[in-house]
Amino acid sequence: MTNDHRPDPATTDDLVTPTLVVDRGAFDRNLAAMDAVRPGRELRPHVKAFKSTDLARRLADDGHDVFCAATVREIEGMVAAGLGQDLLLANESLDVARLGALADEANITVAVDSDATLAAAIDGGVRSVLIDVEVGLPRCGCSPDDAPRLAEAARAAGLEVRGVMGYEGHLMMVGDRAERIDRVGAAMELLTAAHDRVGGDIVSGGGTGTFDTNTWCTEIQAGSYTLMDTQYTTLDLPFELALGVLATVISVSPKGWIVVNAGLKSLGMDHGDPSWPGGEVFFCSDEHTTLRPAEGSSWAVGDRTILHPAHVDPTVAKHEAMWVCDGDRIVDRWAVDLRGW
Amino acid sequence: MTNDHRPDPATTDDLVTPTLVVDRGAFDRNLAAMDAVRPGRELRPHVKAFKSTDLARRLADDGHDVFCAATVREIEGMVAAGLGQDLLLANESLDVARLGALADEANITVAVDSDATLAAAIDGGVRSVLIDVEVGLPRCGCSPDDAPRLAEAARAAGLEVRGVMGYEGHLMMVGDRAERIDRVGAAMELLTAAHDRVGGDIVSGGGTGTFDTNTWCTEIQAGSYTLMDTQYTTLDLPFELALGVLATVISVSPKGWIVVNAGLKSLGMDHGDPSWPGGEVFFCSDEHTTLRPAEGSSWAVGDRTILHPAHVDPTVAKHEAMWVCDGDRIVDRWAVDLRGW
Repeated sequence: MTNDHRPDPATTDDLVTPTLVVDRGAFDRNLAAMDAVRPGRELRPHVKAFKSTDLARRLADDGHDVFCAATVREIEGMVAAGLGQDLLLANESLDVARLGALADEANITVAVDSDATLAAAIDGGVRSVLIDVEVGLPRCGCSPDDAPRLAEAARAAGLEVRGVMGYEGHLMMVGDRAERIDRVGAAMELLTAAHDRVGGDIVSGGGTGTFDTNTWCTEIQAGSYTLMDTQYTTLDLPFELALGVLATVISVSPKGWIVVNAGLKSLGMDHGDPSWPGGEVFFCSDEHTTLRPAEGSSWAVGDRTILHPAHVDPTVAKHEAMWVCDGDRIVDRWAVDLRGW
Repeated sequence: MTNDHRPDPATTDDLVTPTLVVDRGAFDRNLAAMDAVRPGRELRPHVKAFKSTDLARRLADDGHDVFCAATVREIEGMVAAGLGQDLLLANESLDVARLGALADEANITVAVDSDATLAAAIDGGVRSVLIDVEVGLPRCGCSPDDAPRLAEAARAAGLEVRGVMGYEGHLMMVGDRAERIDRVGAAMELLTAAHDRVGGDIVSGGGTGTFDTNTWCTEIQAGSYTLMDTQYTTLDLPFELALGVLATVISVSPKGWIVVNAGLKSLGMDHGDPSWPGGEVFFCSDEHTTLRPAEGSSWAVGDRTILHPAHVDPTVAKHEAMWVCDGDRIVDRWAVDLRGW
């Protein structure tokens, strides 16, 4: 009896709340803004941001037909949806035999940063790798100096080495644009130097925050720009908030607050509370958010309103589908079919 | 190819990570500690904490066979699992016709705090209500003075009014036990005064944080005590951490950090980072957590380890199942089958 079991909803009033809604106009404008800077395969959309093959297909139709992902499950789902012509697992995994098993039906490349992850790729039947290089973010990636050795070991085992990747995630939120350009440049010098010694066609990196300032990579790994969140809107980016969590007012207090039925189980909370155009967010509970409406506004039980999440990726991952809307009219449903691991 | 498609895992080494694991010994001890204070129907377990009918059945077998829930979906799932003999939607909803439709096969009571939510219950075919009273938490609940009027209106419409509920959620984390007792008492005086004027057998409230200090309610709504989280372990409670997120080391940096494949998409982050017995948590990304191991410890790619979430409820809601373990041996699988809305 959730939304998915109801007969075709026509407007947002027909939806069980809380649920995800996508503003089609804002979404289309976000795609156009990215296309203007990163057309076609200069962008490798990151499916982790939206976890939906329906949305991915929309990007492929626009010419962005190569993708990257953060989990084995995401790659499996993309292959099953017929979107497997060039997929990159932009992450280390020891569970890659699941991807090797798909090597005859899809073109899958896996990131490696150690002998152990390379051995897993070889043993698992993976045919192509990228060497993942650490460029300043304290996370995965080998040292730039170790990259050529790993590439050689991969080639010796018969694998194709398609190039390098390096994620400057620590620089996505540098507020000053000039500083961002400088620091991204320094990080990417490490990556391109490694690439000179590794070879291959690909230098993969970047994200929504550096989509236009990272001019060193051959392809940018961005996904959040499609839907956006309030964290990224603090930067000077040309993307709009397209995703919201639709909620229903379930209680109106005489003391001045109202309560909606979308809480922290329907919102990614790692970057803090959501934003609400109608006033202030007081606090989130599991299935509630208490709001302080703007002066002079009037709210009643049953009214519907939209919260904008601080972080889009984990928000989407909490839902089964996104409803694409033109105003209040529902024009499409995108399944969030790449959840789990 | 997620865990659910693999043949019976025998040990935790057979599991796809990240995934939830439950320490059976700690879980059993948590249940015993609660039983000692709140036997049988003095506890109304809150299924929102674990979202699993398999776990709920374990509690029902122990004599706690009445339950409460935060969403309509949770109630529907409990009815479908045959656990519908006394279910309370301890939350306001306008979507309660879905529950009225189940009135012949289950005993369902719904919380109301306004004319609008009462009207929805009446229109939706709900047969029993509790009057939800605000006792200091800025969230749902009518004023104590309005409770008798709502009860009268419900009875006039032919509904059974089973009593009152009030959630002192703002007091769950008061660290000083004596202060907690005082403040819970003041909140519960409001509730019992309303109960005197409303009637019915039930005064429902409380939670894991006040399971033993709230002596005013006829039943306590607690769920987190079963699995526990690091937030609640800051209090003087007799419950142990039984839930963990099992993760695999995917990268070991020569600079001193290691990276596991469980990130903020597998962890409830609203109360902050998880804890790690092996050292310090540096930071969480979508699908990674960077850790600083304790001095002298040694970690290799492929090692497995457990993170303890700060908040159990949203953590469980991100997963499809919990694996119940006796040491490394898997002894049961509990589906997380009450997700969605």
